[in-house]
Amino acid sequence: MTRRIHVIGIGAGDPDHVTAQAVAALNDTHVFFAMDKGSEKDDLVVLRRHICERFITAPGYRFVALSDPPRARTASDSPAYRQAVADWHAARARVWAEAIETELEPDGVGAFLAWGDPSLYDSTLRILDAVAAHVDFSYDVIPGISAIQALTARHRIPLNDVGEPVLITTGRQLREHGLSGSAVVMLDADCSFRDCRPETRIWWGAYLGTPDELLMSGTVGEVGRRIVELRAEARARHGWIMDTYLLRSAD
Amino acid sequence: MTRRIHVIGIGAGDPDHVTAQAVAALNDTHVFFAMDKGSEKDDLVVLRRHICERFITAPGYRFVALSDPPRARTASDSPAYRQAVADWHAARARVWAEAIETELEPDGVGAFLAWGDPSLYDSTLRILDAVAAHVDFSYDVIPGISAIQALTARHRIPLNDVGEPVLITTGRQLREHGLSGSAVVMLDADCSFRDCRPETRIWWGAYLGTPDELLMSGTVGEVGRRIVELRAEARARHGWIMDTYLLRSAD
Ligand SMILES: C[S@@+](CC[C@H](N)C(=O)[O-])C[C@H]1O[C@@H](n2cnc3c(N)ncnc32)[C@H](O)[C@@H]1O
Ligand SMILES: C[S@@+](CC[C@H](N)C(=O)[O-])C[C@H]1O[C@@H](n2cnc3c(N)ncnc32)[C@H](O)[C@@H]1O
Repeated sequence: MTRRIHVIGIGAGDPDHVTAQAVAALNDTHVFFAMDKGSEKDDLVVLRRHICERFITAPGYRFVALSDPPRARTASDSPAYRQAVADWHAARARVWAEAIETELEPDGVGAFLAWGDPSLYDSTLRILDAVAAHVDFSYDVIPGISAIQALTARHRIPLNDVGEPVLITTGRQLREHGLSGSAVVMLDADCSFRDCRPETRIWWGAYLGTPDELLMSGTVGEVGRRIVELRAEARARHGWIMDTYLLRSAD
Repeated sequence: MTRRIHVIGIGAGDPDHVTAQAVAALNDTHVFFAMDKGSEKDDLVVLRRHICERFITAPGYRFVALSDPPRARTASDSPAYRQAVADWHAARARVWAEAIETELEPDGVGAFLAWGDPSLYDSTLRILDAVAAHVDFSYDVIPGISAIQALTARHRIPLNDVGEPVLITTGRQLREHGLSGSAVVMLDADCSFRDCRPETRIWWGAYLGTPDELLMSGTVGEVGRRIVELRAEARARHGWIMDTYLLRSAD
């Protein structure tokens, strides 16, 4: 008798990204653990619930909100960021361990729904690793469509040039190391593509897979400023934004 | 009245990778165009047909085999590779254009099933771009679970270190440029991880998502030789192999 946990990738915004494997795992789950991320991400909470309602055939599952331990307010581009993230993960691990023990029967099945793919800039797997020190359970991981795949699909472009590599990176890393070849940039609150040469090609997308999706492409010189404006305007209107882009240097 | 084409990512080997969006596109399709890749990949042809049988509710669709124009026999690590690929794509574009015109009604819907995600080391989108010069059609792209996501899910690991980038690359590129940080290696017929320092960590997977799946992880020093042996043995037994791995340098 061991508690089981599914970490389920639910895709990057479109409920139709959900895979047959995810549907099976959703239907296997008794308790969905969800982090309470605060009001700015309300739209995402709604999407999670919508996915459960749409794909789960037997009712009887329930949601358990995990309170988020306070997080030191370091910007994602500050040097203290890594330590703050580590402390926060440790605190979360204790909260999660307690929830798993109190909310799941000894043979119960719980799940965490991960945005996009669980392996990509997501802390769920790292925290679960730490939770295992506190409570006994087994877990599996269900892959999901990531924002990167939503981006390339909507622009109908290959991610890589023929036989060439592509870097998956963050806004901070792009600013620090610059661009060479192709790179997908995530977690960028600062439109860091502005530092790139004007001939750099960019394929940008926000709210990918949702009804509010925005797409733009061209060279940084041509469309960079329009993206900056569009992004600011959309972010003000929605109260939050998630955007991703692919860059290809001109040479 | 325009012919429509879906480019559908079908996941990396497990029919359960198929998304709700892909299921809708499969059911919308009259004609599936499939490249005849020769007998070594029979297992993959079988998987494609199995996916159609499982997810398509109304019969009436059909398969059209596209003969593959001859390809110059350059190894994927030779300098002539890019030109050979380009020539081969142009020849394919002509074959595809003719098939679309003759096999699809003027308002017909066709599809290409792409292994994994259509954006990743896959030529379908590039060829379709070239086909558009010969025949009028519209197309959309349905993202799919890539081998990278299957790999990290089965090993239950994050792709990236916290806030760090990860490179998606090929065996040839790894041999030429070496490893720094984290890299996922695809299209590697030569176990190029052998050039990495023995402390490098590796998470390796072959036939991911299929009943023949193989997984191995450790440092290159510990498990490198076992992977080389296992790979050779499995490849001989099946007649083909597809493998992918994540590397993380020790520092
Ligand atoms: C914490 S990471 C999680 C990524 C997720 N695991 C995935 O596979 O896409 C969040 C970042 O992913 C990107 N992202 C996620 N969903 C997105 C969407 N629907 N549209 C645009 N970007 C998105 C943004 O770059 C955002 O900053
Ligand atoms: C031509 S690329 C196509 C990749 C595909 N579009 C994707 O998204 O996974 C083929 C390479 O993908 C990797 N690959 C694809 N399917 C795989 C599987 N089931 N197991 C391991 N590697 C796989 C291997 O590295 C292989 O050489």
